[in-house]
Amino acid sequence: MDSIVIYVPLIMAVLGLLFMSAKRAWVLKQDAGDGKMKEISEYIYEGALAFLKAEYKLLAIFVLVASIALAGIAYVVPTTHYLIVVAFIFGAFFSALAGNMGMKIATKTNVRTTQAARTSLPQALKVSFGGGTVMGLGVAGLAVLGLTGFFIFFFHYFMNGQWAPAEFEGITKTPQELMTIVLETLAGFSLGAESIALFARVGGGIYTKAADVGADLVGKVEAGIPEDDPRNPATIADNVGDNVGDVAGMGADLFGSYVATVLAAMVLGNYVLRDITAANPAFTDAFGGIGPILLPMAIAGFGILFSIIGTFLVKIKDNNAKEAQVQGALNAGNWVSIVLVAVSSFFLVQHMLPETMTMSFYGEAAKEISSLRVFYAALVGLVVGGVISSVTEYYTGLGKKPILAIVQKSSTGAGTNIIAGLATGMVSTFPTILLFASAIWASYAFAGFYGVALAASAMMATTAMQLAIDAFGPISDNAGGIAEMSELPKEVRTRTDILDSVGNTTAATGKGFAIASAALTSLALFAAYVTFTGIDGINIFKAPVLAMLFIGGMVPVVFSALAMNSVGKAAMDMVYEVRRQFREIAGIMEGTAKPEYGKCVEISTKAALREMMLPGLLTIGFPIGIVIVGMLVYPDNNQLTAEMLGGYMAGVTVSGVLWAVFQNNAGGAWDNAKKSFEAGVMINGEMTYKGSDAHKAAVTGDTVGDPFKDTSGPSMNILIKLTCLIGLVIAPILGGHTAEAAPDTTNPAATVIEQREPVVVGQQEEQEIQVDKQVDADGKVTATVTVSTKTSTDEIKTEEKVFTGTDAEVNAKIEELKKAKGAE
Amino acid sequence: MDSIVIYVPLIMAVLGLLFMSAKRAWVLKQDAGDGKMKEISEYIYEGALAFLKAEYKLLAIFVLVASIALAGIAYVVPTTHYLIVVAFIFGAFFSALAGNMGMKIATKTNVRTTQAARTSLPQALKVSFGGGTVMGLGVAGLAVLGLTGFFIFFFHYFMNGQWAPAEFEGITKTPQELMTIVLETLAGFSLGAESIALFARVGGGIYTKAADVGADLVGKVEAGIPEDDPRNPATIADNVGDNVGDVAGMGADLFGSYVATVLAAMVLGNYVLRDITAANPAFTDAFGGIGPILLPMAIAGFGILFSIIGTFLVKIKDNNAKEAQVQGALNAGNWVSIVLVAVSSFFLVQHMLPETMTMSFYGEAAKEISSLRVFYAALVGLVVGGVISSVTEYYTGLGKKPILAIVQKSSTGAGTNIIAGLATGMVSTFPTILLFASAIWASYAFAGFYGVALAASAMMATTAMQLAIDAFGPISDNAGGIAEMSELPKEVRTRTDILDSVGNTTAATGKGFAIASAALTSLALFAAYVTFTGIDGINIFKAPVLAMLFIGGMVPVVFSALAMNSVGKAAMDMVYEVRRQFREIAGIMEGTAKPEYGKCVEISTKAALREMMLPGLLTIGFPIGIVIVGMLVYPDNNQLTAEMLGGYMAGVTVSGVLWAVFQNNAGGAWDNAKKSFEAGVMINGEMTYKGSDAHKAAVTGDTVGDPFKDTSGPSMNILIKLTCLIGLVIAPILGGHTAEAAPDTTNPAATVIEQREPVVVGQQEEQEIQVDKQVDADGKVTATVTVSTKTSTDEIKTEEKVFTGTDAEVNAKIEELKKAKGAE
Repeated sequence: MDSIVIYVPLIMAVLGLLFMSAKRAWVLKQDAGDGKMKEISEYIYEGALAFLKAEYKLLAIFVLVASIALAGIAYVVPTTHYLIVVAFIFGAFFSALAGNMGMKIATKTNVRTTQAARTSLPQALKVSFGGGTVMGLGVAGLAVLGLTGFFIFFFHYFMNGQWAPAEFEGITKTPQELMTIVLETLAGFSLGAESIALFARVGGGIYTKAADVGADLVGKVEAGIPEDDPRNPATIADNVGDNVGDVAGMGADLFGSYVATVLAAMVLGNYVLRDITAANPAFTDAFGGIGPILLPMAIAGFGILFSIIGTFLVKIKDNNAKEAQVQGALNAGNWVSIVLVAVSSFFLVQHMLPETMTMSFYGEAAKEISSLRVFYAALVGLVVGGVISSVTEYYTGLGKKPILAIVQKSSTGAGTNIIAGLATGMVSTFPTILLFASAIWASYAFAGFYGVALAASAMMATTAMQLAIDAFGPISDNAGGIAEMSELPKEVRTRTDILDSVGNTTAATGKGFAIASAALTSLALFAAYVTFTGIDGINIFKAPVLAMLFIGGMVPVVFSALAMNSVGKAAMDMVYEVRRQFREIAGIMEGTAKPEYGKCVEISTKAALREMMLPGLLTIGFPIGIVIVGMLVYPDNNQLTAEMLGGYMAGVTVSGVLWAVFQNNAGGAWDNAKKSFEAGVMINGEMTYKGSDAHKAAVTGDTVGDPFKDTSGPSMNILIKLTCLIGLVIAPILGGHTAEAAPDTTNPAATVIEQREPVVVGQQEEQEIQVDKQVDADGKVTATVTVSTKTSTDEIKTEEKVFTGTDAEVNAKIEELKKAKGAE
Repeated sequence: MDSIVIYVPLIMAVLGLLFMSAKRAWVLKQDAGDGKMKEISEYIYEGALAFLKAEYKLLAIFVLVASIALAGIAYVVPTTHYLIVVAFIFGAFFSALAGNMGMKIATKTNVRTTQAARTSLPQALKVSFGGGTVMGLGVAGLAVLGLTGFFIFFFHYFMNGQWAPAEFEGITKTPQELMTIVLETLAGFSLGAESIALFARVGGGIYTKAADVGADLVGKVEAGIPEDDPRNPATIADNVGDNVGDVAGMGADLFGSYVATVLAAMVLGNYVLRDITAANPAFTDAFGGIGPILLPMAIAGFGILFSIIGTFLVKIKDNNAKEAQVQGALNAGNWVSIVLVAVSSFFLVQHMLPETMTMSFYGEAAKEISSLRVFYAALVGLVVGGVISSVTEYYTGLGKKPILAIVQKSSTGAGTNIIAGLATGMVSTFPTILLFASAIWASYAFAGFYGVALAASAMMATTAMQLAIDAFGPISDNAGGIAEMSELPKEVRTRTDILDSVGNTTAATGKGFAIASAALTSLALFAAYVTFTGIDGINIFKAPVLAMLFIGGMVPVVFSALAMNSVGKAAMDMVYEVRRQFREIAGIMEGTAKPEYGKCVEISTKAALREMMLPGLLTIGFPIGIVIVGMLVYPDNNQLTAEMLGGYMAGVTVSGVLWAVFQNNAGGAWDNAKKSFEAGVMINGEMTYKGSDAHKAAVTGDTVGDPFKDTSGPSMNILIKLTCLIGLVIAPILGGHTAEAAPDTTNPAATVIEQREPVVVGQQEEQEIQVDKQVDADGKVTATVTVSTKTSTDEIKTEEKVFTGTDAEVNAKIEELKKAKGAE
């Protein structure tokens, strides 16, 4: 490997992590306030750590079991290497580490933000966003570090760091085949990351809403004490929940998306290379011939750098600034990093790809395209990332038409409020899905599925920035809570409220970004799956495939229901505990006795961990079950099983995206409809405020929306990504690599060793199979098998397959083909 | 046509209509009660007629516009005959006629049921079920009459009543091709029926809920008067709504399903024939060689007979009978007709199909199967029809676990009640979708997509019985309303309440049956679409197809939201009108002045008609828009456009079924959770009744559920069926018939007229096209075109296409093929 380029993303990742460390040190150096504030912050920190510890214990067991299963697959399937287990464990570990780091810094930053808010708003923003930056860079840095590190390792391990034929387990393989093994092994890293994300998102989502609902129902409604009142035993759990759900959950989600997107783009880059080398066997570039595979990593790497630059722009100077200025500062940082990614993508594409390249579009002949089209595909991704935020804001933002409509409907009761909220969420799928569909179509038209994956990669390149903006919300929310609980002067709370309010908007748009990234990532994974299995696309006109499309469509719905029910159950546990404490601990309401905060934290933790089992099982169990059923029913037709699993993946993705958008936006809309009453709203010509009947109806709507937007909605992202990743890891079991169909162009000196006479197979039709075998200088056997079939309409269809490998391997494949044809 | 069999279904239909007339006369002969009862019943009758009249006026315009559009298509596309317009108009007319008849008898039966309930419960059941029977037989009779009548007409018009080659517009066509034209023209009848169903279901759904919500909100909640109180101005509109929505809407829905199912099965029967005659060109049977096409009609015809037999079993003797006995009587009738259909299907399959038949399964070679497997496929349909009712009852039935859980959750407020209801609806998709997926897979495995269509046909064969059971519900509901409004003795209301309560259960299970039928029908239509367009399946690995799958998935969600919002708007109109009457008409509350019932009826009518426009536009506009976009973007590749539309259809079907099940079951569950409070429920160890806080929470849930279960949920059926039907009608524009690829085996004397040299087309790859032309004695040209392509992996793929027709036609097709290949 002559080129240094392969190490560039690694350097960027390290740079990001170094900058993060510096920022972290700065944040921790800030004043953490006085006794009471410190004490409360300490409670939240401890609670968060307690959850993480309990979660990690459970996850360790899961990782162990999954590793054994993966090792089993590696043992049985020759093309799956045992190193996938190592990658899987590291993926899980890195994801957990990123979550841990993020949560620690968030729970340290909250109190420092409160303290900073005592002096000025600009300082409070600086501290809270600083905490968010640490989180964002930690996640992005670790993702790129892990992925590129493992890629370099596997590239050297399996391919000696060069694009050339080499021996693998005694068989000489083409560079194409070897790279496929590299990337399949690397998929383990992504699978590990996404598995942790499932539990972090679902568990975190259940935790946060159980604590929130429990605290509200007993504290606010039954006991009549305000939010974040220190007399409420569940209030610490509630604040912990913000960190567990919004910080750790979102972090794990985007960590998973980031890794999966880049991985999928690399897999598809390998197939781009196949087309290029097929047209020009002597192809090479400045990157040892693997430019298209390195490109997504390079874009991701530079994205870290530009996110850092963007963070410098997030600041305000005016102490009397309002939400608009704070939002403006965040937007400035965000847009600058997006534009920089766009510019750098242009140069990277120009630099790393050949000027024109041969690319085959599915179902069409290969064609020559300008590499600039890959850049256009990347632009599509950036545009989607930007537009989705506006769409989400329109349907969920304070003062927007849909929110005002919900507010009006609240005047006729909770029923009409809820119908209006549901309808808003449902209608919001219209522009969102049209946007996604156009993005898929456009980026594919530009550069095939490689284009779709590159669109996702470009969009995800600013992950560090997105997460910084996202994490800043719950930090400010917590800061406000601490101010309230420590009974600080009103202006402190006013300042944190400004930050919190902006945080609510960024939370909604962040969810839009997360679902857009999940959708594009899943499609890229889906495309990678199809190429890995080597199937001829996914034809839903085959009834078993169609049946799986239906089942796939159903799973996100049931998953959401399970998550919602879990919140209900966990919240009830919390309600009973809070009631018990109010009853049994004397003096709690007078503030003379302290509530047992720890008990509530424990209950939320336990409930979350218990309740995330079933949804997790559903996610992992269904794809595996389909493969088992498919293999049992069609023992000779793995390709059909692969198509069935593909149909399932498509069903989960389409339905999952729909339900994510519906639930996130309905939840966000109800939330802000309720919030509208704080400043007062005009209903039927009358100003209406908090405490009115209409407000009560809006509160009911928000109760319904809470699990929608914080538990089941965001979980959809993980469900669809994990489903497609599991498919990708299973793929080698189901399919021969398509790469093996590519003849070895490096060994033209071949001798004919066998030419069999055509034989008739199959019963109902005239079908002939003819075999020609050749062997080259290295002893590699190439068999050309021609199948001629006279169909019922008297057409003759001829199909040629080329198998390579040892003589025994080739014979086995021929027999398999005959069996498959004869069994038809 | 020697066989008389083709006329059998027609005879059955006439028999059904005759029996219906007799039953109708009997019902009308019953005592219609005294003055006040008669007066109220008259109001309802007039209101229902007013709605129908206004609706028909609007529909006449729609039918006119659609007819012109269809005539345009017929003019442009040579294989579409102008008779499709005639079929379309008759389809619309028959559907409207069936709705009209059903609604008239329902509004006449209600008061007679009330009067009968003054004497005894058995008599009340007899009268109300008699009215339902008239409705059921009317719908089924007209459906079979219209469909078979037009089939016989077209069969004679295009094919001279025999399975033989004939001339069509100057070109000699194979019987296969001619039958395709017959069935495509017949599709107009189905399209007409389903278009009316769209408006009947959506308009009816909006009407009934607007009136219901309006009456409840002002009458029950604001004015505090009981349900069905004659002082409430909206009460007549409310009772009209039951008839408009539940009787006319459901009738039009099932009329459409019935026709579409049988049609789809006939289309697929034509392709079964292709396989049979390909294997055995001399094939013939006792039915002029078209047994497989006649079979679905025969099953439907006998279904009418068995439904009549079933109705005789629906009776009770005990005047003190409770819900269980009434339900038992209905079940007995239903099961007997189902079993009879099963038995008759066995004999019909044995009689009408060859003992073994050649059938080609998609992607596999043709194989010889026993015709008994077609019977098994039909059994699958009957089982699904039965099981779906049990599943629906489990999730929505009084006293079942999910309902009890919702009741418990009502104690913590409306929010938790609603979350529980939503979750119940969502979870209910699990068994339902697994059932559907298994049914698709199993019936396909037995007999291909013909099996899927036959499963649907068998299930629909008992439509008359299903509708009788279904229509009996709203009749009883009305009867109760009349008893209340006429201030009859309490025992009358008690008796009608028993019938009403059973009616609520049958309404829920009927909705299950309707969605199951819609799902299977859509799949059968989907399969018919693929065969009509002659595409190679629907491959969602092509990005434009995948994009359309996403858009298709979104449409049912947005459609539902529009329907829900429409209910909200229409209900508000009603609320304002009722308030106005209470305010302006003095003495209304004292019962000394009469409310203006007509005004409320008018408002509901206007609002329903206005609000059904946008959902209707969405349903019809999207498929047409996709075809236009596809043809603009890919002018040379109609096949890709056809696949895109297919992807859209699949998306609508999968998502539509999911949302139908979710909304119907959630709505049913909330309704019965609320009803549970009437008898009292145990919550946290305390008996809780109507008027409690928990009950109020349950009422809120029911408000949300109302549009779910009566408007948006049931509309999904029509949306998915109509989408697939529109696709089917558009199909000839997009595809050559596959039938034309079948060589004319009846004319073996052919001469070679041209053999062109291979030419190279396409740019990036080596591709050759070779043409061999022959002409037979009739001047029919057969060209064999061989396309050899060397792909990027050096495989050579050979594809042979056979075109037949006049020389000019064949040349045009060859040029088209070359263009398509060259453009790749």
